[in-house]
Amino acid sequence: MNATSAQRSLADQVIAAIRAVVGAGPVPLHEPSFAGNERLYLQECIDSTFVSSVGKFVDRFEAELAAYTGAKHAVALVNGTAALHIALKLAGVKEGDEVLVPALSFVATANAVTYCGAIPHFVDSESLTLGMNAAKLRAYLNEHTEQRSNQCINRATGRVIRAIVPMHTFGHPVDLEGLLAIAHDFNLALLEDAAESLGSYYRNQHTGTFGLMGTLSFNGNKTITTGGGGAILTNDSALARRAKHLTTTAKLPHAWEYWHDEIGYNYRMPNLNAALGCAQLEQLPAMLDAKRAVFHRYQEAFAPLTGLRVVAEPEHCQSNYWLQTLLLDTAFAEQRDAILKATNDAGFMTRPAWTLMHELTPFKDCPRMDLAGAQSLVQRLINIPSSSRLIA
Amino acid sequence: MNATSAQRSLADQVIAAIRAVVGAGPVPLHEPSFAGNERLYLQECIDSTFVSSVGKFVDRFEAELAAYTGAKHAVALVNGTAALHIALKLAGVKEGDEVLVPALSFVATANAVTYCGAIPHFVDSESLTLGMNAAKLRAYLNEHTEQRSNQCINRATGRVIRAIVPMHTFGHPVDLEGLLAIAHDFNLALLEDAAESLGSYYRNQHTGTFGLMGTLSFNGNKTITTGGGGAILTNDSALARRAKHLTTTAKLPHAWEYWHDEIGYNYRMPNLNAALGCAQLEQLPAMLDAKRAVFHRYQEAFAPLTGLRVVAEPEHCQSNYWLQTLLLDTAFAEQRDAILKATNDAGFMTRPAWTLMHELTPFKDCPRMDLAGAQSLVQRLINIPSSSRLIA
Repeated sequence: MNATSAQRSLADQVIAAIRAVVGAGPVPLHEPSFAGNERLYLQECIDSTFVSSVGKFVDRFEAELAAYTGAKHAVALVNGTAALHIALKLAGVKEGDEVLVPALSFVATANAVTYCGAIPHFVDSESLTLGMNAAKLRAYLNEHTEQRSNQCINRATGRVIRAIVPMHTFGHPVDLEGLLAIAHDFNLALLEDAAESLGSYYRNQHTGTFGLMGTLSFNGNKTITTGGGGAILTNDSALARRAKHLTTTAKLPHAWEYWHDEIGYNYRMPNLNAALGCAQLEQLPAMLDAKRAVFHRYQEAFAPLTGLRVVAEPEHCQSNYWLQTLLLDTAFAEQRDAILKATNDAGFMTRPAWTLMHELTPFKDCPRMDLAGAQSLVQRLINIPSSSRLIA
Repeated sequence: MNATSAQRSLADQVIAAIRAVVGAGPVPLHEPSFAGNERLYLQECIDSTFVSSVGKFVDRFEAELAAYTGAKHAVALVNGTAALHIALKLAGVKEGDEVLVPALSFVATANAVTYCGAIPHFVDSESLTLGMNAAKLRAYLNEHTEQRSNQCINRATGRVIRAIVPMHTFGHPVDLEGLLAIAHDFNLALLEDAAESLGSYYRNQHTGTFGLMGTLSFNGNKTITTGGGGAILTNDSALARRAKHLTTTAKLPHAWEYWHDEIGYNYRMPNLNAALGCAQLEQLPAMLDAKRAVFHRYQEAFAPLTGLRVVAEPEHCQSNYWLQTLLLDTAFAEQRDAILKATNDAGFMTRPAWTLMHELTPFKDCPRMDLAGAQSLVQRLINIPSSSRLIA
């Protein structure tokens, strides 16, 4: 730390460090990059007249997603929320069940649980991965649940805890080893909310491929986008078939008859959106390189500052660095709001993490463990401009 | 009828009549037409980088839909099923309620009711509009329901019948006068499922604008398409605001904070799909002219045939003629399957109406009135090739 930075406010130092990496503002938090075949494939899609729920781009996008992630199957859907909803249903989550989800997550994770008539049960996070704290969760489950007929029962509510949905926060892989062991030991279905982690690997295996199913998002703010979109990843062929069936109104194949054998959903990704996705996926490796380069530039620019660090990928992991993140030291947490205000005022869009789920009105009465870790993190996290095109 | 046609099978006569209008096959049932600014607007959308849940095309599409239909507000959504789901929620449909829906409809109408935890209650159809039979429904409600605290109670189940959702079958407006009177007299919220009837008018007012809300679909098989898409129409500003809020994860506006004040949904139409919609909407008047011309050509071609008629718009109505439809006379109903097989084998895609909802496994135990009208219709309806580009 040099003399000058010591005399400037931390907020001013943060602005200077961001500016050193991204240049003059205004700079958004994350914007997509369309540097490849996006325009071409959209034209091809229009020329084919297949813009809706069937078409070659949907099939191709699914095949290429599966190949890229190493999942046996990918089912392209209308968005990541829909993917979570269907994955939960297929995992057997029923009305009155509980599902373990991180308190520190975008609201979609908890919302999807409620779409099944189930109740989110909030889990604490730890600071290395920003995701579920496996050790603390194990101790909590040991104390508060019991096994009955191979089901995990919440002693306080009497309800079945059916599944656990870890989320890879800002692209950083969660402690999958610890959580898979918990899922095994407590008879929970593990579904990975990999909405933020396309291109992120845990011990050289792509996130979203460890549990029963994983879900992706291709919203406009994600590493690659289809406008709106999502996918289910799974290695289970029967689940993949069920996912496709449920998301296409549960219609049985027939040239002209309309037989639907269960309550289905209209959740398929349109071919138009898949066309965009195919072009985006071609550029994913270059985008990931660019995002990693942005991380290293930030790491260098912020190194002289006292009171914060740039969040780096966890050990044994490769992060996609979707959103670059500052983590303030505990002693500097009270400066978060000043930094948010100053950076946004200066034209550099920054953002805190989400409001913790249990603080939202619709979830305030849901069961939860002690959330001290998440509460500390949420006071100290700041996302900073992260587009892959920043230094392209 | 000339001598020749009397000696040929009805199926062969149908094939000849279709061929006289559309030329040699193969001809699909309905394909979209992209003859305008589709490619241009998609390029503009990519150039803007706004492809996702915000963007100028979403705002423009909503404004133009409202202007076209005469509704005060249009809220663009990810598909027509999502529009039905949210409209039902906003109409106050709650778990354990019943909702009157036609037995003769696409499965989305009944599915959306179940998404609210409510139970579809199936209503019969009549042959002039192919939609709900208002007179028969009134008699049924008089006999089987009672009013308690201004709520309509199904005496057999004890449940509240909260709403009625007439659907404008194949684009033909339902008997709105009769059904609005029922909604008024029995304290039911009326929501119009106008998925099939963009461009259809009842007494010079656009369908979807009569009830509390109306819903549209822009699926690939509809008159205009956004790939996948739908909309809610309403004249109630508060409902329109609520619809936008609920479909954008119920997030309160703030530069960086994430507050969601209720369980929301990820149902917004992406800007990419809205770009396609804006181009399609520009061509809607020409498409409607073309579809009407197709109808007249079919009417002429089928006039000599005995045993069927081409379905024409109901009195006081202007139909969009989304799907051209043959209605066999009762005495000829048994020839339906032979006609379906022969036409499809000849390369002219034809299709029966949907399986009636109460015959589907997930709905077999739902309450229903006598469905003799719908049962007769479904045995006699055949959709024939209907694209607007057929005679362009």
